[in-house]
Amino acid sequence: MFDQRLAEKAGETLHRVRERRPLVHCITNYVTMNYTANALLAVGASPVMAHAEEEVEEMVALAQALVLNLGTLTQARVEAMAKAGREANKRRLPIVLDPVGAGATTLRSRSARKLMEDLSIQVIRGNPSEILSLCRGEAKPKGVETMHAVDESAQAALKLAQDYHAILAVSGPVDLVTDGRTVYKVHNGHPMMGYMTGAGCTATAVIASFLAAGSETHQAAAAALSCLGLAAETAAKASNGPGTFQIQLLDALYHMREGDLKQGARIEIARGAELISDQNR
Amino acid sequence: MFDQRLAEKAGETLHRVRERRPLVHCITNYVTMNYTANALLAVGASPVMAHAEEEVEEMVALAQALVLNLGTLTQARVEAMAKAGREANKRRLPIVLDPVGAGATTLRSRSARKLMEDLSIQVIRGNPSEILSLCRGEAKPKGVETMHAVDESAQAALKLAQDYHAILAVSGPVDLVTDGRTVYKVHNGHPMMGYMTGAGCTATAVIASFLAAGSETHQAAAAALSCLGLAAETAAKASNGPGTFQIQLLDALYHMREGDLKQGARIEIARGAELISDQNR
Amino acid sequence: MFDQRLAEKAGETLHRVRERRPLVHCITNYVTMNYTANALLAVGASPVMAHAEEEVEEMVALAQALVLNLGTLTQARVEAMAKAGREANKRRLPIVLDPVGAGATTLRSRSARKLMEDLSIQVIRGNPSEILSLCRGEAKPKGVETMHAVDESAQAALKLAQDYHAILAVSGPVDLVTDGRTVYKVHNGHPMMGYMTGAGCTATAVIASFLAAGSETHQAAAAALSCLGLAAETAAKASNGPGTFQIQLLDALYHMREGDLKQGARIEIARGAELISDQNR
Repeated sequence: MFDQRLAEKAGETLHRVRERRPLVHCITNYVTMNYTANALLAVGASPVMAHAEEEVEEMVALAQALVLNLGTLTQARVEAMAKAGREANKRRLPIVLDPVGAGATTLRSRSARKLMEDLSIQVIRGNPSEILSLCRGEAKPKGVETMHAVDESAQAALKLAQDYHAILAVSGPVDLVTDGRTVYKVHNGHPMMGYMTGAGCTATAVIASFLAAGSETHQAAAAALSCLGLAAETAAKASNGPGTFQIQLLDALYHMREGDLKQGARIEIARGAELISDQNR
Repeated sequence: MFDQRLAEKAGETLHRVRERRPLVHCITNYVTMNYTANALLAVGASPVMAHAEEEVEEMVALAQALVLNLGTLTQARVEAMAKAGREANKRRLPIVLDPVGAGATTLRSRSARKLMEDLSIQVIRGNPSEILSLCRGEAKPKGVETMHAVDESAQAALKLAQDYHAILAVSGPVDLVTDGRTVYKVHNGHPMMGYMTGAGCTATAVIASFLAAGSETHQAAAAALSCLGLAAETAAKASNGPGTFQIQLLDALYHMREGDLKQGARIEIARGAELISDQNR
Repeated sequence: MFDQRLAEKAGETLHRVRERRPLVHCITNYVTMNYTANALLAVGASPVMAHAEEEVEEMVALAQALVLNLGTLTQARVEAMAKAGREANKRRLPIVLDPVGAGATTLRSRSARKLMEDLSIQVIRGNPSEILSLCRGEAKPKGVETMHAVDESAQAALKLAQDYHAILAVSGPVDLVTDGRTVYKVHNGHPMMGYMTGAGCTATAVIASFLAAGSETHQAAAAALSCLGLAAETAAKASNGPGTFQIQLLDALYHMREGDLKQGARIEIARGAELISDQNR
C-alpha cells in the first residue's frame, strides 16, 4: 500500500535539508511564528522572519525558500508578500502559500486569490475548508478550523493544482498532496496536532525547507508532511497532552534521522480519479 | 465556605464548552497570543486571532465571543477593537475586555475607558492596579505587574461593575468576580502563574470561551477562573519551575473533566459590603 | 584561568535583580517576545513590551532598563525606538541594543547605525556577523544566523566599543564582552542554544535586567551572559532536544541561586591585544 520509493526519497530530502541548512524566509502570522521558527531549526533549516515592505526583497535575496502565510493578515502585509513573491519568482526561489482563514473574511480570500494569480507559487497548503473556499469561493470555515472532511476537498485540490500549475496539499487525518493528476496520500500524523496552534503553519514551513533542499516539488511536499507527521507520532508517545506534545514534537523533529523517515514514512500513491471514488466510498 | 452549586455550574459550563467548541475571536497582544490560542484549544474552544480593521467585523460574525486585550497596543488596534466591539454588540456576542497596562500609559488608560464607554462589555478582567486605575484614574502600575493587593481594588471593582453594568474580575491570590453587589471569590490558583507571561491574558480568553457556552455571565466568569486556577494547581504538582509549569498547564486544561471541576472548584459567595470589611480585617 | 572575583560579582548582581525586580521595557521582535518575557520573569525581573510611538516615552518612565531589538523591524518601530531611547538617555536608564539581522538588509543596518549614532547605548549584543556588519558595513549574514566565527569579530567589537563608548558583547561558543580594552570571555553556554529561536534576544534582555540592578556595565553584561549560559548547561542535562531544552532553560533560570552562579560562572579576563593573538592561534 505505501510506496517505499517515496519513503526513501523523503529520507534523502531530510538529509539534504540538514546538509544545506536552507534559509527559509517566512512572512507569517504573529500567533505561530515562534513555533514555526523553532520547528525549522529542529528540522535543520534556518528561519528568518521579516515582513517590512522596505526589506523583504533583500531578505528574499538571501533565502532559499519563501513562505507566505495569511494569518493575522493586514493590507500592508499582503503588499509585502506580493513584493517578496515577485522577487522570489525572479530568483526562481520556491514559494509556499498558506491561505490561513481563506473563506472566513474577504481580506483573506481576496488576498489568497490575488497572490495565486500574480505569482508563480509552487505549493499551496491549507485545511479542507480553506482549499474549498479558494476553489468555490463559498466555504465559510469556522475561523481557521476545518469543517469539511479532507475527502470533500480532494476535487477542489485537483482542480486548483491544474489551474495554477501548483502542488496542492490538504491537511487532514490523511494529508492529500496532488499535482492535479497523481495524489500522494500521507498517512503519518496524530490527532493531537489539532490541539496545538500552528501545526498547519509549521507544516507549510517544513514543506518550504524541503523544497529548498532541491527535491522535486510534489515528492518534497509529501516528504515534508510525512516527516512532520512521523515526528508527531513519536511526540504523542512521549507526551501527555497538547502542551508536552508540542514540546516533544520539536525534540522528535530534531532527532529524526534519514533512516527513521525511510522506515516510517507512509505515503500512498493514488490517481486523481481513483482517489475521488475511493473517498466517496 | 465554598459554594457547591457554583462548583456544579462550573463543571457544567466546561462540559458545554467542549460540546459547542465556541469560536473565540481575540484581538490581543503579540506577547501572549500563541499561549492564549493554545489554552483555548486545550479547554475545548476554537481560537481565531485577527486584528485588521478590514476584516474584524466579518470575523466577529463567525465567532461566539470576542476578546479585546490592550497589550502591545497601537492606535490602529484600538480602532479595530471599537469596530469589532460594535459588531459584537449588534450581534449580542459577549465581549471580555482585558485592560492590560491601564494606568501605565495614557494610550492604555484612554483606550480602556473609551471602549468601556462606547461598548456594552460583559466582563472586564484585570489585575488590581489596572482595575484601580480604571476607577480612580490614578494608579501607576509597575508596567503590567500588580502593586496593589487584590483587596484594595475590591471597592473599585464593585463601583465599576455598577457603573458599567459589567462583571468585574480582579486577579490575585484570591480572584474576585463581582456584578456590583455579590462577589464570588475564587480560591483556585497557584503562585507560579505570576512567573509566566500571559496568565492573565489566558484567564481573559478562557472567560470568553465560558461565556460563549451560554451560561449566566457572573457564574461563567467565576467558573472560568476556577477552571484555569484548578488546572494551575495540577500543573504545579507536575512541574518544577515556570517553564514546565506553563506546558503542564495546557495538559491539565486539556485533561480537566466536568467532574474534576465540580469537585475541585473553590468558589465562595460574599456580599459586597461583607467583602470589603472582610478584606480590611 | 577563570576570574573568581567576576564570578562573585555575577552572583551578587543576580541577587540584586531578584531583590529589585527591575521593570525591563522591551521594544522587540514578534518572534521571540513571549520567550523573552518568560525569561525575564524567570530571572526575577519584570517585563513590559510596548512599541506604539504614542506610549513608549511613558513606559520608559516606569522602567529601569530599555531593550531595543531590531528583529521583525519596520520603519515605525525604528521611530518608536529612537523616541524611547532619547527618553531613556534623558533619564539615565541603561539601553541594550540587539542589532538582529544587521548586515542582512539595508533597513536593519541603517537603523542599527542610526540608533548607535543618535543615542547613548550602554551595551550592544549580537552574533559575530551582525557585529562585523556594524563595523565594516560589509557582512552579509545568513539571515539572523551567524557565519563568522566569534574570534573573527573580536576586532570589530573592540573598535565599536571604543568608537561608541559602549560595551560590545559577541555571542558564540565563547562569548566576548569588551569595553574596547579589556575583554571578558564567558565560557558558560551550550550548543543547544543554537537550536532554539530567541537565545540571543533572551541574552540581550537578561543583560538589561542585570544593568538595571545597578552593577558596573561591563561586569554586569558578562554576568548576565554567564547566568544564562550556566542555566543552559543545567537545562541541557535535564532535556532531550531543543523543545525540552528551552522549557528547562526557564526552570533553570528560575532556580539559579546566587551561590550557583558564584560557583558556576566561568569568566576569563583578557586584554584586547592578547585576545586577538589568542584568537588567531
